[in-house]
Amino acid sequence: MIDLRSDTVTRPTAQMRQAMATAPVGDDVYGEDPSINELEARTAELLGHEAGLFCPSGSMANMLGVWSLVPVGREILCDRRAHIVRAEMGAHAALNGITMRTWTSSSGTPGIARTSDITDLLELGCGPYLVETAAIEIENTHNFGGGTIHPIETLREIREICRQGGVAMHLDGARLWNAHVATGVPMREYGSLFDTVSVCYSKGMGAPVGSVLVSSAQRIAEARVQRKRLGGGMRQAGILAAAALYALDHHIDRLADDHANARLFAEQVTAAVPAAIDLEHLATNIVVMDAGERLAADVIAAAADRGVRISKVGAHQLRAVTHLGIDADQCREAGRIVGELLAS
Amino acid sequence: MIDLRSDTVTRPTAQMRQAMATAPVGDDVYGEDPSINELEARTAELLGHEAGLFCPSGSMANMLGVWSLVPVGREILCDRRAHIVRAEMGAHAALNGITMRTWTSSSGTPGIARTSDITDLLELGCGPYLVETAAIEIENTHNFGGGTIHPIETLREIREICRQGGVAMHLDGARLWNAHVATGVPMREYGSLFDTVSVCYSKGMGAPVGSVLVSSAQRIAEARVQRKRLGGGMRQAGILAAAALYALDHHIDRLADDHANARLFAEQVTAAVPAAIDLEHLATNIVVMDAGERLAADVIAAAADRGVRISKVGAHQLRAVTHLGIDADQCREAGRIVGELLAS
Amino acid sequence: MIDLRSDTVTRPTAQMRQAMATAPVGDDVYGEDPSINELEARTAELLGHEAGLFCPSGSMANMLGVWSLVPVGREILCDRRAHIVRAEMGAHAALNGITMRTWTSSSGTPGIARTSDITDLLELGCGPYLVETAAIEIENTHNFGGGTIHPIETLREIREICRQGGVAMHLDGARLWNAHVATGVPMREYGSLFDTVSVCYSKGMGAPVGSVLVSSAQRIAEARVQRKRLGGGMRQAGILAAAALYALDHHIDRLADDHANARLFAEQVTAAVPAAIDLEHLATNIVVMDAGERLAADVIAAAADRGVRISKVGAHQLRAVTHLGIDADQCREAGRIVGELLAS
Amino acid sequence: MIDLRSDTVTRPTAQMRQAMATAPVGDDVYGEDPSINELEARTAELLGHEAGLFCPSGSMANMLGVWSLVPVGREILCDRRAHIVRAEMGAHAALNGITMRTWTSSSGTPGIARTSDITDLLELGCGPYLVETAAIEIENTHNFGGGTIHPIETLREIREICRQGGVAMHLDGARLWNAHVATGVPMREYGSLFDTVSVCYSKGMGAPVGSVLVSSAQRIAEARVQRKRLGGGMRQAGILAAAALYALDHHIDRLADDHANARLFAEQVTAAVPAAIDLEHLATNIVVMDAGERLAADVIAAAADRGVRISKVGAHQLRAVTHLGIDADQCREAGRIVGELLAS
Repeated sequence: MIDLRSDTVTRPTAQMRQAMATAPVGDDVYGEDPSINELEARTAELLGHEAGLFCPSGSMANMLGVWSLVPVGREILCDRRAHIVRAEMGAHAALNGITMRTWTSSSGTPGIARTSDITDLLELGCGPYLVETAAIEIENTHNFGGGTIHPIETLREIREICRQGGVAMHLDGARLWNAHVATGVPMREYGSLFDTVSVCYSKGMGAPVGSVLVSSAQRIAEARVQRKRLGGGMRQAGILAAAALYALDHHIDRLADDHANARLFAEQVTAAVPAAIDLEHLATNIVVMDAGERLAADVIAAAADRGVRISKVGAHQLRAVTHLGIDADQCREAGRIVGELLAS
Repeated sequence: MIDLRSDTVTRPTAQMRQAMATAPVGDDVYGEDPSINELEARTAELLGHEAGLFCPSGSMANMLGVWSLVPVGREILCDRRAHIVRAEMGAHAALNGITMRTWTSSSGTPGIARTSDITDLLELGCGPYLVETAAIEIENTHNFGGGTIHPIETLREIREICRQGGVAMHLDGARLWNAHVATGVPMREYGSLFDTVSVCYSKGMGAPVGSVLVSSAQRIAEARVQRKRLGGGMRQAGILAAAALYALDHHIDRLADDHANARLFAEQVTAAVPAAIDLEHLATNIVVMDAGERLAADVIAAAADRGVRISKVGAHQLRAVTHLGIDADQCREAGRIVGELLAS
Repeated sequence: MIDLRSDTVTRPTAQMRQAMATAPVGDDVYGEDPSINELEARTAELLGHEAGLFCPSGSMANMLGVWSLVPVGREILCDRRAHIVRAEMGAHAALNGITMRTWTSSSGTPGIARTSDITDLLELGCGPYLVETAAIEIENTHNFGGGTIHPIETLREIREICRQGGVAMHLDGARLWNAHVATGVPMREYGSLFDTVSVCYSKGMGAPVGSVLVSSAQRIAEARVQRKRLGGGMRQAGILAAAALYALDHHIDRLADDHANARLFAEQVTAAVPAAIDLEHLATNIVVMDAGERLAADVIAAAADRGVRISKVGAHQLRAVTHLGIDADQCREAGRIVGELLAS
Repeated sequence: MIDLRSDTVTRPTAQMRQAMATAPVGDDVYGEDPSINELEARTAELLGHEAGLFCPSGSMANMLGVWSLVPVGREILCDRRAHIVRAEMGAHAALNGITMRTWTSSSGTPGIARTSDITDLLELGCGPYLVETAAIEIENTHNFGGGTIHPIETLREIREICRQGGVAMHLDGARLWNAHVATGVPMREYGSLFDTVSVCYSKGMGAPVGSVLVSSAQRIAEARVQRKRLGGGMRQAGILAAAALYALDHHIDRLADDHANARLFAEQVTAAVPAAIDLEHLATNIVVMDAGERLAADVIAAAADRGVRISKVGAHQLRAVTHLGIDADQCREAGRIVGELLAS
């Protein structure tokens, strides 16, 4: 099986397993796990923040970031296809009482906002009886947009507008690593534009479990208590942190291979069906495909029969994601098969 | 003072007070208030539903309607300037754990959606790990859109799409009376297109307090328990229901006067500043005005100095609302004054 | 029918209706209803607090009081049969995320705690990973305890302990009027011992609708916003406030009649069945009766057949409540009938 | 350092690390992690339930169990010192809107209820406007009670009463292993008395991270979705499950050593200060000590200076917990040191 459903399916490499097997650990609920402490510190440093917090999932890291910026009954704005509003089970409202409004990104690049998309939606200074915007959220790269990247210039503009309006900013940087590798913009430069940032180690980075939220020391201290409330306080979690530390040292640069492989895959598909993929906006490791009249579910089943696993992001929309478990030849082969299915 | 801030400022008329003073009452928490029972039954009948529930505010009626359609962690879609997402303090998320996504209405009429605005946002059949749309909400007339009216044909189309997709529909009909009077579409015809409908008696209808939610008998029975949980169970509330019953009998048709008066006001303003008001979309009793470079707050203060009260709906946007406490001459006079201020 | 189910069933008197019919009113969501403003100010003054907030129910007044003292995820302690934990539909948890622990009052008087009942339960200084007590709640008189009264000395002791521990105190004073009339302790003396106090105008005081929460100006300002969120913001609510103002002027002292009538009722019952009522602890207007082997529901049905309505507070426990709609003769008559039923 | 603060501080043994290093893994969010699937199935089987769900913490496993039994606004009853009400940050209320009432256990054994403690508190058949008991919770062994054990006969009685009343039952079995080893009652016999059971692998069982909730297949399927909402969905979590599987095979019987060591420790302490420990109720691996006039914090600091770590469970109450990282000699030594400090 060539499994391109998601970059979450990666299994730890032998060296990563070795790092886990020898990791120093302690009780992280007491703050005594040296591997966790190192991972939190290194991630914070990398992103230009004071402190970090290890979480069992990207969803929890986003939840804690947003929670730390938005009080009960206030709103956060985001793109209508953002992970936080589509793929986190309504948790921000269900668990933390936070409401959302969504913009439709109009830059032409799927999932990527123009500054005005956001400013049109901001509500400031509207007094005690209307909902005032507390924060906005950006997802970079943008998963359901197809791994697309927010231009750093736009992010700087938005930051300035938010700064003036007293509006906080959260970055869902689950795949910020991919944006960094694709653009060369330093992680710290992205990170410093936001009040809270989550990054994920169990997607392209290849670790089995874990995301880290970074922010100010004060916010992270509060988020640590809320993480306990959510049931996210783990004991000897250093076993997991060791894998993430290994990824920090060895798996960032190699994301360029995933990007190249995504293009190989996409070229095979478009060779068969030119309109299936918007190649112009293929930026990182996620390929979104238009199945035309075909039902996505049918194509997925047919591909699985031929040894390729892809996933569905709409009734007629498919997604393939490259990652460290899949090499260039496999991507070409998978692209050929999917192309045939879409052309048939 | 000519108070055009909102149609919520109306004081009960002498006859309405008389109706309240002689109303039969009982303990409504026990279901024994005859005036409440009559009002709930008549409102349900009027809108083509099985049962009704009296609430202390339109916000609570909307909250209960949405709550009865959308489970914790699921989403409701609405216009980005809908009352439920702008003016209800994030209650749907804060109290009931319901998340929202918002569309930007593109029909050309402010606040009025095209069917595709909604269908573009709907998410159906997306399985247990993505948020599936549970309901959509329509506000008719649309308050922050400027009292605009959803065409009945569009509503029928949306109803059909939602029916097919298993998506419920809530109508915020706080000012549905105005839509009905302006278009001649029967209340029941509007009401029957939705699973839950709230109508308000303390806006154009002129009663001091109260909204009624209508729906199926089952949903209303559940909403009655949740109303108690929210602290909305009142005892001899028939005093208030009597005013609403009076309004049902005497205040519906007269809304046409409010609409005519809104036009008188708007004509005076546009005589001074033609671009200030989008006359084409002036449909009922709400006039939205563009203050140009002026700060809305400054215009409001200057108008108050000259005996006219209007309100703010944006940093540079003003709103005037006509109602039973203001006659045609007062509207002309107020329009003249506001026009002068905007022209100066 | 002699209706002794609750003192909530009272209908407004002719004079009270007159006061409502002529009340000056305005839009209370804008803070402009003169009757509401007067009622809030007078109630605050009476209880020794800075400010007041009118609410559509005692449940909402309690909810806002507790909400203003206890953050999400923290706890309030109360008696196991307190109204806030038994009769408010879990609202404090469901809507505001507040958890509770309960004590079993051991003073010998039903529902009345000894100081040690509370101190045994308090948890202070226990760090970020255990739940620390934020507040305690006292209900005076205690409804399900049978209208029993907390000794002022005990309340002072508890206040001092809470003061030292940084624990806030809420008083559910729905029937504080009855405690005041029965003991002569001034309302202000009770009120000043608590951080937040709710009192109800629609029980013994005889107004149709409404409770008032009092506290500091700061807490009341915040509670006003939260009241809006709950859907408790009403427009020309002065109609209701006028009835409460009338009750303040005319209905406090007469509660002594209700207390005397409760005793008349109880004496008739105990003449027939001596063990049915704990006469020693009959303190105000609520009589709790033990139905022995009989099902409460059966006794209620039989009493209703003979023109007397009482209510159930346990499978074999009944309650009768006297109020301004029932006179001494009716109470004797009702007591005779209920006594016969319990003796038969 | 002899670390007796908690049995959560255990580090994985070399063999356990080896099991983790070679564990087969997959993406558990897709249900494809073989180690997780095996652990869930074996734990369910062991406890006589249909299905299991791996969670990052015991708090989350309890939260999901209680959530699956108690709707928003309903109540669960528990002991006043239960972990769910003391040590889970109010999560059941804060996140899931569930309210609690608490009993004071009166059996004489700390934390262990008599049946009547519970039946006195149950509220059944009380109609739509009072809170009806949805579930009760038992913690076995009882952490803050000092590792005490609920007699199986009492549990059977409670089960029968709850069955008749339609009340569900959750077992916090974080240390059910200890109860099983101490009494010989099979895990399945305990498990079958409850609707939902959580057991923890990261306490006495010595795994680094993880608890499992077991229940019916239907409830577990729903809890799996809610786990995602809480941010508890992990990817290649089989790394952690492998440690738990190892513990299932090798660490159950050895808990008897921890129990014996706890007694060795306690004997040393009571040799110095006879009243410090209630030896009669020392049942498993948790020793609760009375520090007399001394502040717990002071004793903890002094003990740490001499190489022994213990923890605080009250202002003047200490706790020591034995586990696989501490042998008999260390326990004797630690007991001697703590005894000296309490005697001095």
